[in-house]
This record gives sequence, C-alpha cells and structure tokens, in this order.
Amino acid sequence: MEVPLKSTHIPRATIQRLAVYVQVLETLVQEGELVISSDGLARACGVNPSQIRKDLAYFGEFGVRGVGYYVQDLLLAIKQSLGINRTWNVALVGVGNLGRALLRHGVFRRRGFILVGAFDCDPFKIGEEVAGLEVVCSRRLKDKVAELDIEIGMITTPADRAQRAANYLIEAGIRGIVNFAPARISAPDNVFVEYVDFMHHIFSVAFNISLSQTKIPS
Amino acid sequence: MEVPLKSTHIPRATIQRLAVYVQVLETLVQEGELVISSDGLARACGVNPSQIRKDLAYFGEFGVRGVGYYVQDLLLAIKQSLGINRTWNVALVGVGNLGRALLRHGVFRRRGFILVGAFDCDPFKIGEEVAGLEVVCSRRLKDKVAELDIEIGMITTPADRAQRAANYLIEAGIRGIVNFAPARISAPDNVFVEYVDFMHHIFSVAFNISLSQTKIPS
Repeated sequence: MEVPLKSTHIPRATIQRLAVYVQVLETLVQEGELVISSDGLARACGVNPSQIRKDLAYFGEFGVRGVGYYVQDLLLAIKQSLGINRTWNVALVGVGNLGRALLRHGVFRRRGFILVGAFDCDPFKIGEEVAGLEVVCSRRLKDKVAELDIEIGMITTPADRAQRAANYLIEAGIRGIVNFAPARISAPDNVFVEYVDFMHHIFSVAFNISLSQTKIPS
Repeated sequence: MEVPLKSTHIPRATIQRLAVYVQVLETLVQEGELVISSDGLARACGVNPSQIRKDLAYFGEFGVRGVGYYVQDLLLAIKQSLGINRTWNVALVGVGNLGRALLRHGVFRRRGFILVGAFDCDPFKIGEEVAGLEVVCSRRLKDKVAELDIEIGMITTPADRAQRAANYLIEAGIRGIVNFAPARISAPDNVFVEYVDFMHHIFSVAFNISLSQTKIPS
C-alpha cells in the first residue's frame, strides 16, 4: 500500500501528535482491536476528535463513516508517511548513565530504530560492552557510520561535550541528530536536530502547579 | 524582585521556549556574560528575535534599547514567573535502567528539582540504594509524599505499569506528573501530566530525512 502524502508541509505539532497516535494504535493492535471510533481514538490519545481528523487529513482519506478507523491500516499509513515503516540504524554518543539506559531501552528497537554503535571519548569506557555493543572511540565515528550504515545519531554526553559529539556525527555524514544533552548545538541545514529536553516538561508541570496555587487565595 | 505575570494564559509553545531560554541564560551566567543583545540571545536559542520579544512580553518589559537584556535579571524573572525560583521535591517511580539514569542525572538538582524518593514494586529492588536513595515500595508512596513534602512525580516504569504508578502518585496527593513511560495515562484535571516522549523526536528526524530524500530524484 503506497500512501502518497497530500502535503509535505506537515506542522511540527502534527508530527508530535502522530507519534502519540502511533503509540496508541500500536497498543490497540497488541490488544487485538480491529476498529476504533474517531472519538475513542481521540480519548485514548488525549486529543479532541476534530484535531485528529485534521491531522490525519494530511495523509489522505481515512476513517469510515459510522465505523471509525481500521487500526492496522491507519497505523501502517502513518508509519509509511512518516518514513518509519523501515528500520534505521542509530549511533549513540556518550556512554554515561543516560546513554547506558537508552542503549538498554527496548523502545527504540521495537519502533525500528536499531542502536548499532556506542561511542565515547573516555579511554576507560572504550572497549567496554554495553547492551551487546562494544564502546568505540568517537574519533572512529566516520568509519563506523559508513561500515554500519548509520543515519541517525543520539547525543547523551554532558552539556559541554554535546557540540563536539555533534561535530563528529556531522563529519561522519549523519543526517539527523537527537540531542539528549542539556545544551543547544549548531549543525548545517541539511542535518535535522531534535532536542529531548526533560527540563521543559518538568518546568511546565511546576509552572502549572504554581499558577493553580496562586489562584486559590490563602 | 516581584515580577507580576502580565497574563496567566501563556501558550504551551512559549513555555517550551522559556525552558530553552533558561538553559541558554544559565550558560551565559556561568560564562560571566552580563548583557546579551536580543539577536544574540535569539541565535543562541535557535529562535528568531521577534519570537523572543513576543515570548518575553508575557512577563513584562524586558530588554533595554541599544543594550539588550541583562542576563541575570532576565533569568531570575523567567524563573520567578515559571515558579521555578525555588526547589521542588520529586518522587521517581520505576527504578529500571532509565529510572536509575535519571536518579543519577545532575540536571534535575541543578535546576532545583530534588529527587527525594525512589519507588518500585519489585521486591528485589526494594531496599536497594540508588544515587543515595533507598528504593521504597510504591504502596508506601502516600506516607512518603506527606513525610518528604513531595509535589511532583516522575514515572519511569515499563508502559504497562505506568497507569498503576500514576494511580499511586495521584492517591498520594501529588500535583504534577512527568511520564517517561511510553504510554498515555489518565489523571484528574487538577493533576498536571507531561509526557517525555523520546519517540516523537526520533520519528521527526526520520520523517525529515525521508522527506529530504524523496525530494532528490535518484
């Protein structure tokens, strides 16, 4: 099934929600659900039904009036449109606590992102085995990226080493970076950078709690 | 310095960017920078200058014409407005690989979020010490939340245990949850839930790489 994208200008917020839809739809598939109503999907995703319809409209005509969505078809179509209906080889740079946790985290492999290389600059870490991978010196990224057909890099270094890690990845010809380090990095326009920023989520929760407390006069 | 919020309806996207501004401003403070131009701050944050001016306008009048922003004042004002100019006690539920990594991650404490409790249901983990904390049975959350004055919970369980962890936290009277587990959770309206979803970032990178490749005819 080839799903032509109706538009390649998909807003960032839509892509964020699509990741949620994928997560919810995968759970439904596991639970053996064949069909879900528009309202049911919306509720499970924590989004309003009109938003879901609008988001899915970027990918063509889904949903059958009076029935809802065919879970498996919708999941496949979204994954195909997002280019995630195949596997991607990923390199992780920075084998600290967080890096180790991510190397051992099943979620990436389950979704088709295979961590095939672990890199670090620390001579005490090089050669160590983590989650079945031998830690390799970051300077060898260029060779390894070619050898292992790596397209995406994940950075889990401390903040002050994130740019250096990014430079190694960029020089190695990587096309996308997911940065978990609490630092901004610069990269050329043809390299896509995403930030996983724990802090904005916790800031947001703290901010909402503060606001709700100031509303109640003491 | 008391900064009255001009508006409490601060869009979610603004809060996300404020977290970036805080990160960049804290780096500038560490580097001893006193003043930064609007353009300089915008560049460092990866945001356009008019966006920054618009975002900061929610908090009052900042920026001095011909000078820019006073780094320390701006940082304090944002933190005060977000309610993060104080410390918050945090409980972590789910002491797996990711939970351990977060317990050992310095970023939370540095930003004022103190992990004071680690909880798990696994009898083999209970009593273990991780990052200076003794792992406590999740059923004891209610007592511990009161005893340790915990306001925020972080969930790092597997997906299928996230809701149970959330239930323990909610029953314990927690006001906000940051969920790292790849699952949606339901919570009452007075509990603020944020999702840290690694996958949408990696999906987004994969999607952008796919799109850029389809643009180049082979």
